[in-house]
Amino acid sequence: MRAGRPLGVAVIGYAFMGKAHSQAWRTVASHFEVPDFERTVLVGRDAEQVAGAAQRYGWAESATDWREVIARPDIDVVDICTPGWTHAEIAIAALEAGKHVLVEKPLSNTLQESEAMVAAAAAARQRGVVSMIGFNYRRVPALAQARKLIRDGRLGNIRQIRASYLQDWLSDPEAAMSWRLRKETAGSGALGDIASHAIDQIRHLTGLDVADVSARLKTFVPERPGPGGPEAVTVDDAAWLTLGLRGEAAGDGGAIASVEVSRVALGRKNSLRIEVYGSAGALAFDLERLNELEFLDGTDPVEEQGFRRILVTEPEHPYLSAWWPQGHVIGWEHSFTHQIRDFLVAVDEGTQPSPSFEEGLGVQAILDAAERSAASGGAVVVPASVPTKQQEA
Amino acid sequence: MRAGRPLGVAVIGYAFMGKAHSQAWRTVASHFEVPDFERTVLVGRDAEQVAGAAQRYGWAESATDWREVIARPDIDVVDICTPGWTHAEIAIAALEAGKHVLVEKPLSNTLQESEAMVAAAAAARQRGVVSMIGFNYRRVPALAQARKLIRDGRLGNIRQIRASYLQDWLSDPEAAMSWRLRKETAGSGALGDIASHAIDQIRHLTGLDVADVSARLKTFVPERPGPGGPEAVTVDDAAWLTLGLRGEAAGDGGAIASVEVSRVALGRKNSLRIEVYGSAGALAFDLERLNELEFLDGTDPVEEQGFRRILVTEPEHPYLSAWWPQGHVIGWEHSFTHQIRDFLVAVDEGTQPSPSFEEGLGVQAILDAAERSAASGGAVVVPASVPTKQQEA
Amino acid sequence: MRAGRPLGVAVIGYAFMGKAHSQAWRTVASHFEVPDFERTVLVGRDAEQVAGAAQRYGWAESATDWREVIARPDIDVVDICTPGWTHAEIAIAALEAGKHVLVEKPLSNTLQESEAMVAAAAAARQRGVVSMIGFNYRRVPALAQARKLIRDGRLGNIRQIRASYLQDWLSDPEAAMSWRLRKETAGSGALGDIASHAIDQIRHLTGLDVADVSARLKTFVPERPGPGGPEAVTVDDAAWLTLGLRGEAAGDGGAIASVEVSRVALGRKNSLRIEVYGSAGALAFDLERLNELEFLDGTDPVEEQGFRRILVTEPEHPYLSAWWPQGHVIGWEHSFTHQIRDFLVAVDEGTQPSPSFEEGLGVQAILDAAERSAASGGAVVVPASVPTKQQEA
Amino acid sequence: MRAGRPLGVAVIGYAFMGKAHSQAWRTVASHFEVPDFERTVLVGRDAEQVAGAAQRYGWAESATDWREVIARPDIDVVDICTPGWTHAEIAIAALEAGKHVLVEKPLSNTLQESEAMVAAAAAARQRGVVSMIGFNYRRVPALAQARKLIRDGRLGNIRQIRASYLQDWLSDPEAAMSWRLRKETAGSGALGDIASHAIDQIRHLTGLDVADVSARLKTFVPERPGPGGPEAVTVDDAAWLTLGLRGEAAGDGGAIASVEVSRVALGRKNSLRIEVYGSAGALAFDLERLNELEFLDGTDPVEEQGFRRILVTEPEHPYLSAWWPQGHVIGWEHSFTHQIRDFLVAVDEGTQPSPSFEEGLGVQAILDAAERSAASGGAVVVPASVPTKQQEA
Repeated sequence: MRAGRPLGVAVIGYAFMGKAHSQAWRTVASHFEVPDFERTVLVGRDAEQVAGAAQRYGWAESATDWREVIARPDIDVVDICTPGWTHAEIAIAALEAGKHVLVEKPLSNTLQESEAMVAAAAAARQRGVVSMIGFNYRRVPALAQARKLIRDGRLGNIRQIRASYLQDWLSDPEAAMSWRLRKETAGSGALGDIASHAIDQIRHLTGLDVADVSARLKTFVPERPGPGGPEAVTVDDAAWLTLGLRGEAAGDGGAIASVEVSRVALGRKNSLRIEVYGSAGALAFDLERLNELEFLDGTDPVEEQGFRRILVTEPEHPYLSAWWPQGHVIGWEHSFTHQIRDFLVAVDEGTQPSPSFEEGLGVQAILDAAERSAASGGAVVVPASVPTKQQEA
Repeated sequence: MRAGRPLGVAVIGYAFMGKAHSQAWRTVASHFEVPDFERTVLVGRDAEQVAGAAQRYGWAESATDWREVIARPDIDVVDICTPGWTHAEIAIAALEAGKHVLVEKPLSNTLQESEAMVAAAAAARQRGVVSMIGFNYRRVPALAQARKLIRDGRLGNIRQIRASYLQDWLSDPEAAMSWRLRKETAGSGALGDIASHAIDQIRHLTGLDVADVSARLKTFVPERPGPGGPEAVTVDDAAWLTLGLRGEAAGDGGAIASVEVSRVALGRKNSLRIEVYGSAGALAFDLERLNELEFLDGTDPVEEQGFRRILVTEPEHPYLSAWWPQGHVIGWEHSFTHQIRDFLVAVDEGTQPSPSFEEGLGVQAILDAAERSAASGGAVVVPASVPTKQQEA
Repeated sequence: MRAGRPLGVAVIGYAFMGKAHSQAWRTVASHFEVPDFERTVLVGRDAEQVAGAAQRYGWAESATDWREVIARPDIDVVDICTPGWTHAEIAIAALEAGKHVLVEKPLSNTLQESEAMVAAAAAARQRGVVSMIGFNYRRVPALAQARKLIRDGRLGNIRQIRASYLQDWLSDPEAAMSWRLRKETAGSGALGDIASHAIDQIRHLTGLDVADVSARLKTFVPERPGPGGPEAVTVDDAAWLTLGLRGEAAGDGGAIASVEVSRVALGRKNSLRIEVYGSAGALAFDLERLNELEFLDGTDPVEEQGFRRILVTEPEHPYLSAWWPQGHVIGWEHSFTHQIRDFLVAVDEGTQPSPSFEEGLGVQAILDAAERSAASGGAVVVPASVPTKQQEA
Repeated sequence: MRAGRPLGVAVIGYAFMGKAHSQAWRTVASHFEVPDFERTVLVGRDAEQVAGAAQRYGWAESATDWREVIARPDIDVVDICTPGWTHAEIAIAALEAGKHVLVEKPLSNTLQESEAMVAAAAAARQRGVVSMIGFNYRRVPALAQARKLIRDGRLGNIRQIRASYLQDWLSDPEAAMSWRLRKETAGSGALGDIASHAIDQIRHLTGLDVADVSARLKTFVPERPGPGGPEAVTVDDAAWLTLGLRGEAAGDGGAIASVEVSRVALGRKNSLRIEVYGSAGALAFDLERLNELEFLDGTDPVEEQGFRRILVTEPEHPYLSAWWPQGHVIGWEHSFTHQIRDFLVAVDEGTQPSPSFEEGLGVQAILDAAERSAASGGAVVVPASVPTKQQEA
């Protein structure tokens, strides 16, 4: 699709995620072997603000009309960092225009939109166009190392997974109303925003399929101050799920995962905790200490068994040989750097990176089942079956 | 009921719990002001073994017939440490004989038996006879301190409670079949054995009522070796509950608790973890580090907020002035010492100690609701209403 | 020395250490196989108070004259829990009277007294009389397990040891003057009181000899309130030592230990921390979490290396099979229970328990060298050579 | 010195430190308000390699002759990332050429060279030329927050500081000989390399002066494989220091700091741990968890006191408002980003940034005193007095 020239990259959106992706685009080529690319254009609705952001974050240009940008022949990659309700329209248009697409999670806010995106990605794939959804935590080295241990069988048959994602930025009842707290714009609350990360990890770490879902949702602060007075919060503050899991990694006697997420858990700032218990070993991780992985080897002599705190900063660990000497910890932002590295390599090789849109749709189907379960009193619900196009790293 | 002579004490059962209680009976008077008592008799089925145990643990006599023992006029207190299926018969007989009764948890294996025990306790109470169920973790100083902080309003309105109790002694599929793994003898598995502790704590710490229960149960190892070959395990290895909570401590917008328990969580030995999140503060506790309590004060300036690791060994902390200087940690066994101290004081004062049989029945009703929810696919179930006789410490 | 009757035991002193030893004497026979003994008499200066203590702690009698007690033919064991300045007189008299002696650390307050005690112990040993000094932390299971790992070569050649013992009970300048703060009665401050524990551990864990000592001492609060006004504190609040170590466990390229102790380290309550670094592994321990041992096995693959948090509560761990099921933590007090168990077994077998008086003298010689080094500006000093009579467990 | 054009920046050196500084230069303007600058040229000895590095790290040009580069009129800033033995020559030349200079620590390998650099910096300062030494850990947000707490008096009078910096990259005796292990090229071993960081922090956090120094040095692996066979290691593997401290922050009863550093502490990767104990509070920090600060407020009620784990990621924390939302941790590299931000602001404002060359010389004088103390058996040595030009942030 291009001959000899660097890939042209456009990022749509310049808020939190646009800033994080920009930092990754800026940094990736210093530390990893990737195909040549140019940071061509940053796109946003407010001309002045996006121009300032483009300058700060190192984009050659800025623009306000994403349709014009994806029509440009010098743009090869479209990286979508806008809110979820806009994902489907932009991603489908970009794929149809033959652009490689990286879209932030969630894939979209509705199952229908997500299905349309999957169809567009499948069609584009036939034409050599690559697509990926941004579950960036897959590229946290400690979690990549965790996956390796599980896939190498070091945990034996997986039995129980405990996942939680706790934050507290909505703990204060006076925290202002926003688009993230309205069902129409956000789809859901903590469920879609952060349970989605936990669910993707559970599937990615273990390879297990989610056979059924039970859930409970709760909104602790039902009204929040808006510009003209109190407004109703129409999404969940917190969610509790259990997932029935099936697959080879479970033996297959089946496994169970619990997922608890909250944006009002006072004192927890960005704590995605994952514990995995198998018949031969166990793992524990906390995103607030993302350079660490705890691993218990159940085959050690019993008097020497214990969770090892592995500082995942050795050259032997995933992604780490590109960075600093051992013990020099990296930050949250580099999950994005690694994601873009893997995306670019896939674009270059013409392979499908993981997580695919199909994998993103799979997460949406589980979230949808959770909402249906919660609405009906918590009884287990089977998620809609989805096409699978998992190309494992 | 007695004049001038020390209380005569009988303990029924000399296995794990009988040993733990014996250590507490042996120790309590060295460290606490309690009414005079004598360690009169230890009761068990095997005459030789119980005689040996009585000698080791410091009981004046041993006996094999609990009925004879509770008939003795020199016995004032009966402490029941036998398996759950025997509790009702012994406790009711002892109460009817006018003996003060301390019974290990669970109150019994069935709701019906528990209800009969409550009736017997209520009748005995009219005659000045005291009864108590042994949820010993209420007397872990760090948890008693946690309760104080909650009751003092330091957490604001309670929103979320995360409780888990993880062990691994059944992780090995070759661990032998036993009475604890049969529904007829044990009632349930991890649910009754350890979720009961977590549920009692949730209620005790917060004072909230359980309005509804959703649950999932799982047996990971369906067969285990018995003397004559493989036998079916008929209880759960692990259980997941969510509890809808109501009450003043929640505001009352309601609160939600999650409870996850397992006896196959490899690497966790006796890890009862409890996290409580409120609108103004948060707490965390782990029984494997039972001298510690983590407390976050949400009213601290934001740049100084953090979970404080309080070493609960100061004279100002509950029960601790009786022990060693600050920093000299105590062991699990002294939850029993403190329990017997509080029980003896109540006997002396003729007051009802907490937890009462009614409180024990309340836990049983929640476990029963959990079993019914799990059997019906996880939808929420309302626990049977139970008489309440909570006399708070 | 006795025929068929239980050993008669006398404890001298009923304050903090007398209470801790009494709890151990009370408990040991319930959990360990030990020769028969009777808790005969508790000795103290105040007749009324010692009588109360004897009753509380379970001693058959009380007495006020230790000389009379050690003269009694029904006393076989004398356990000395009085302040350090009284140790020599009592211990020597008891040994000469043919009594087995357990003496609390420090052996005494001066090198001369300690040497006399060693001579008495050596003479008594010839007559089958056993003696021991109470460095109780040797009997903390996690430290006993640490020693086993080191002795099994799991750390390779020992290189560095970092030991600290931090408390804060003297942090407040208004904390009252006491005998512990006067050189005449206490010998030294944090140095003798708590550095002695650290030094004993360093030697015990590794078997290395202390070749030289460099030290610095500091008194942060030079005056404290006494009954009649401010009084001068004449001992150290804190001490810093480095020890040059020699021996087979070091290779013998020599090893270095640092020791830092304080009674004014605000927020540390009873934190004896020990880290041992070798060529093949490493260990870390903290007395505030005394059921845990951290162990790093340097022969693990580098991407799986990490400090393992071993919960030292398995039946396979030292002393633990006598106690509770795995994960049920024990308290500080049972270091004394284990000490008395080992002492009684040695009395029964007629063997020399460790630590011997010679070992206690060795610690005193190192403390003496530290004081001399500090007095002369910190240059290294060689400790006086001492007889060695280490009989390893 | 320039009119209207961006500052031209040259970095000398493209190895570990050159890479880290380059990442900071690349990133700083995206996140902080800084004067305009251009990443003009990267300088190294090997033309091909430095050209590759310049391209990867985003420098417009590369060059091999640092003298030519500092002579260029378009270069305003020289950032020196070469080994210590080259610092003096380059820095002095650059300052004399009127360039602002940032030099990596150590200032140089000898006191004499460092004194010449200080003289050059002082002279240049008269001409408005700015200079700074790169003790980057001052810009770790958690340590900057620690300093704020100390300077605000939250710890009361400082008494004890425990600092250690433990690494293990030389633990393996087969790790190869290098310039860092020869006295001629490295000056010293762990002492200059990492104790320097600890010493700078002690002074920076507290503002206390080092009155005297006692030290011990040790080389555990005396020979290492070189290209032609074993070669002698002529620097220390580990060092132990105590520092007598004086100043207002101590009350001024004086304070004591201990410093222990090692490059053979197996299992510790990059663990700069600092604990500060005062009369009213205490702090603890570990560089392996650099987003966290532990703080104990001694004025809290005793039953609620404990070390708080503050996750230093709030907008209210130093440097953090520029980064991500709370809880999204940053990496080691951004200590350099913040350093360059502060350096650039000082250049723009014409103020002297801290740490100055004088402060760097102060550290060198303490290291020199440590070497002299160690050589003479450990007795305390008074460091050479040095000019002070501390301009506090």
